[in-house]
Amino acid sequence: MKFDYFSNRITVRNFNGRHIPDEKLTNIIERAMHAPSCGNMQLYSVIVTRDPSMKTKLAAQHFNQPASTGCDVILTICADFNRFSRWCKLSGAKPGYDNFHSFITALTDAVIFSQQIVTIAEMEGLGTCYLGTVNYNANDISNLLELPELVVPVASLAIGYPKGDEKQVERLPVRAVIHNEKYRKDSDQETLNLFKDKEEYPDNIKFVKENQKASLASVFTDIRYPKEMNEAVSKSFTKLLKIKKFL
Amino acid sequence: MKFDYFSNRITVRNFNGRHIPDEKLTNIIERAMHAPSCGNMQLYSVIVTRDPSMKTKLAAQHFNQPASTGCDVILTICADFNRFSRWCKLSGAKPGYDNFHSFITALTDAVIFSQQIVTIAEMEGLGTCYLGTVNYNANDISNLLELPELVVPVASLAIGYPKGDEKQVERLPVRAVIHNEKYRKDSDQETLNLFKDKEEYPDNIKFVKENQKASLASVFTDIRYPKEMNEAVSKSFTKLLKIKKFL
Repeated sequence: MKFDYFSNRITVRNFNGRHIPDEKLTNIIERAMHAPSCGNMQLYSVIVTRDPSMKTKLAAQHFNQPASTGCDVILTICADFNRFSRWCKLSGAKPGYDNFHSFITALTDAVIFSQQIVTIAEMEGLGTCYLGTVNYNANDISNLLELPELVVPVASLAIGYPKGDEKQVERLPVRAVIHNEKYRKDSDQETLNLFKDKEEYPDNIKFVKENQKASLASVFTDIRYPKEMNEAVSKSFTKLLKIKKFL
Repeated sequence: MKFDYFSNRITVRNFNGRHIPDEKLTNIIERAMHAPSCGNMQLYSVIVTRDPSMKTKLAAQHFNQPASTGCDVILTICADFNRFSRWCKLSGAKPGYDNFHSFITALTDAVIFSQQIVTIAEMEGLGTCYLGTVNYNANDISNLLELPELVVPVASLAIGYPKGDEKQVERLPVRAVIHNEKYRKDSDQETLNLFKDKEEYPDNIKFVKENQKASLASVFTDIRYPKEMNEAVSKSFTKLLKIKKFL
């Protein structure tokens, strides 16, 4: 059986400092632009952060997590209806993309494009990490990168050559995710069973202990992604969508 | 130079009717589950539609576009915070994922997963097409598939073996999409130049003529994605997010 990249891929947070040539990065982005796109509108842009001073400022917006400070380059992928709308206006047409649905459409386009960059980069031997913090300080990131109306950052990728010291983490069993014809109504016990392997995964047991929590779920709800934080980000992100005229 | 799948891929809307075995589909989904996921929460589910009567009903929600009626299987990929929240509650933790930010997080997870399915499926010789209509009738789709709270359909994929009669379409030049350090401020002429190849693409010239429009942009603004429609979908989709407790 030949090696399957997809089953074996891992997220990389530790990089070895080797430089990715510009041409290589451009080539990856250009190939990723053949990813599916709604109506072939290609509603995305990518801001490349390489300049050390810009990288320091941008990493700070990502709370200086090691992947953001240690990577060779940060790509900020944006949902972008600005370029397309401007073209419409300059062509004498009246664009109507300053609304929530258009944001969701551009967000979807941008994430598809972003994941295509990840796959191509990883298949070329690079390591990548999504910085999930992109939404937290989206307004400050937007100011730093001078994003205009109808452009919102939706995915940040830290990219570099992997140090090679990381291992694959656990995943849910496939039956957790697949539903045939209709959404399955699992019993409480069946639901708990889906997360059993996850709870028994040695790194997760360690994680619960270190955080002095009663369960793995509590680590998520109390420490990693607490309600108050999610609600605060909901507010600031909604505000940004208004500033950018998507709401 | 060896063949590069990424630069050559095409979206497939015409299928040859050959059946995809269940094991093959499950294998693709299982491999796609190694795609990056926020905090490894895997905030997605996929509803597999194969049953002829369900497929007829679901295709109708996608306006019976040929890809939806002619494909072997439709996958409806959902942003899903239900499974994770339920596990939290059953574990004695208090989930706080009934908010807009959590929806965006799950949507991003689901689209990454969805694009991973597309890449794996296409590399295995299957054809795929995103049905961009998933948001238009999201509430009816949700009812048909019996989606519970905190589960919203965000990507629909028509999948099957390709008939083989389709060709690659045009894309923007890479410079349209890449910005170094800051979002580039193009002049009007520079913006128009980015779309020049697109406007001169023979199929697009034909498209403008057939629709009796003055420009390609007008085909988008007046026919394909008009303002009134985008605003109506914004309203119905916002309503669904409220029903599903994300707003």
